[in-house]
Amino acid sequence: MIVVGERINGNSKRVREAVVGRSADFIAREARLQVEAGADYVDVNAGTEAEREPDDMVWLVETVQSAVDKPLCIDSANPAALRAGLQAHKGQALVNSVSAEEARLEPVLDLVKGHGARVVALTLDDSGLPETTEQRIAIARKLAEAAERAGVARDDLFIDPLARAVGLENEQGAAFLDAVAGIRDSLPGAHVICGLSNVSFQMPARRLLNRTFLAMAMAKGLDAAILDPLDAGLMAVVCAGKALLGQDEMCLDFIQAYRSGRLGTQT
Amino acid sequence: MIVVGERINGNSKRVREAVVGRSADFIAREARLQVEAGADYVDVNAGTEAEREPDDMVWLVETVQSAVDKPLCIDSANPAALRAGLQAHKGQALVNSVSAEEARLEPVLDLVKGHGARVVALTLDDSGLPETTEQRIAIARKLAEAAERAGVARDDLFIDPLARAVGLENEQGAAFLDAVAGIRDSLPGAHVICGLSNVSFQMPARRLLNRTFLAMAMAKGLDAAILDPLDAGLMAVVCAGKALLGQDEMCLDFIQAYRSGRLGTQT
Repeated sequence: MIVVGERINGNSKRVREAVVGRSADFIAREARLQVEAGADYVDVNAGTEAEREPDDMVWLVETVQSAVDKPLCIDSANPAALRAGLQAHKGQALVNSVSAEEARLEPVLDLVKGHGARVVALTLDDSGLPETTEQRIAIARKLAEAAERAGVARDDLFIDPLARAVGLENEQGAAFLDAVAGIRDSLPGAHVICGLSNVSFQMPARRLLNRTFLAMAMAKGLDAAILDPLDAGLMAVVCAGKALLGQDEMCLDFIQAYRSGRLGTQT
Repeated sequence: MIVVGERINGNSKRVREAVVGRSADFIAREARLQVEAGADYVDVNAGTEAEREPDDMVWLVETVQSAVDKPLCIDSANPAALRAGLQAHKGQALVNSVSAEEARLEPVLDLVKGHGARVVALTLDDSGLPETTEQRIAIARKLAEAAERAGVARDDLFIDPLARAVGLENEQGAAFLDAVAGIRDSLPGAHVICGLSNVSFQMPARRLLNRTFLAMAMAKGLDAAILDPLDAGLMAVVCAGKALLGQDEMCLDFIQAYRSGRLGTQT
């Protein structure tokens, strides 16, 4: 299970202010806390206006890479910011994200390939957000074909079948989960990733819903997630899920996490 | 999701003493608490010696049916105790359990059919406990064929693919989960049930493992579970899982459970 820490995101006012004010200590601390809690990648999203975003992204990449030893997930809808972030990044980055929208697909994949990066690919095309399992799988195939044409290795492709709010559309949880399994079956070697928290949008008890949904998605084949690693209950589910799926030899990581108190109090 | 409350089980010393001492108040209270917490069936297992077990089972059935309005799950390895329990039971009981062991298969299914009951069928035959997904599915098919021959309706069959301890054999969690999905696919209309707690045998943080495994199994198609309904964290996962799988229209049960405080504090 690959964990992408989501906390350095300019959609949060506090993070955006830290980016604009160049508060390196704040950003470095957020990075270190996430890595200590188990993040494999640290997502960086500046969240600033398009004009200044490339510079902000370079500053973020340099600041976070000075603080931690993990690769970054360079997160922007702005190709100029992705390019600037990739140029500043040392090692193999993860790009967040491409989609099957025509204007973005090939340019972003070329950029990914040019920097030897990995990429999150959203099952979204010019007709909008997918509703059904089948739509998600069809777009995933299109993404995988385009990645192959661009020379991006299957192992560098992280498909995100886009979790939607079950509180608004009750059937979207099952549609997503079946898409996870379908993508794992039809695109062997590709990873399946998601941002969890959309599923619980506008519902109470969101942390419980997110935890339960993460366990469900892991059982269906999800092998990466964009989440808050400081949510100890969520990370406990990652750890338990790996042990239960046979991904933790002799359950040693799980037992170690228990002994060090990382599984929390509800055990 | 069908919840079978497991607390009235003579393997617990306190319950066995209550059975032997005919402590109706204790048994009735255990039954009421489980039903209030959401049990759809109340399991009754006397746990006493074979000779007296039929009488004890009759007393249990009468005592619990006087206390609650839910059907019982009549639980014994002893056909005489199952028969006595079924004769005493009002309404449609669930029998726990039959297996594909030759000496038990047809006699117990005939008893089930004779009383119009439902039955838990373990994927276990004379060669012992199954190791692989394929063994579990093969035995499930054998059970379904025997049930059909005996005239037990598919909807009255609850297949238990037998969860085994991941701490002892790391691959058993995944083998079980794939069997849940395989049985749902190959035997449409049959239910899939399990006793959860074996999966965490000899591990620390068992409640966390059991909760996570329940979510995983629900995602794979488990639609019934034998568990302790007084474990609020586990029942919160049942409730969240139903909402996430589209089994809770408009998420009304989930929202109601939240408002009444039944989802606990880790939300």
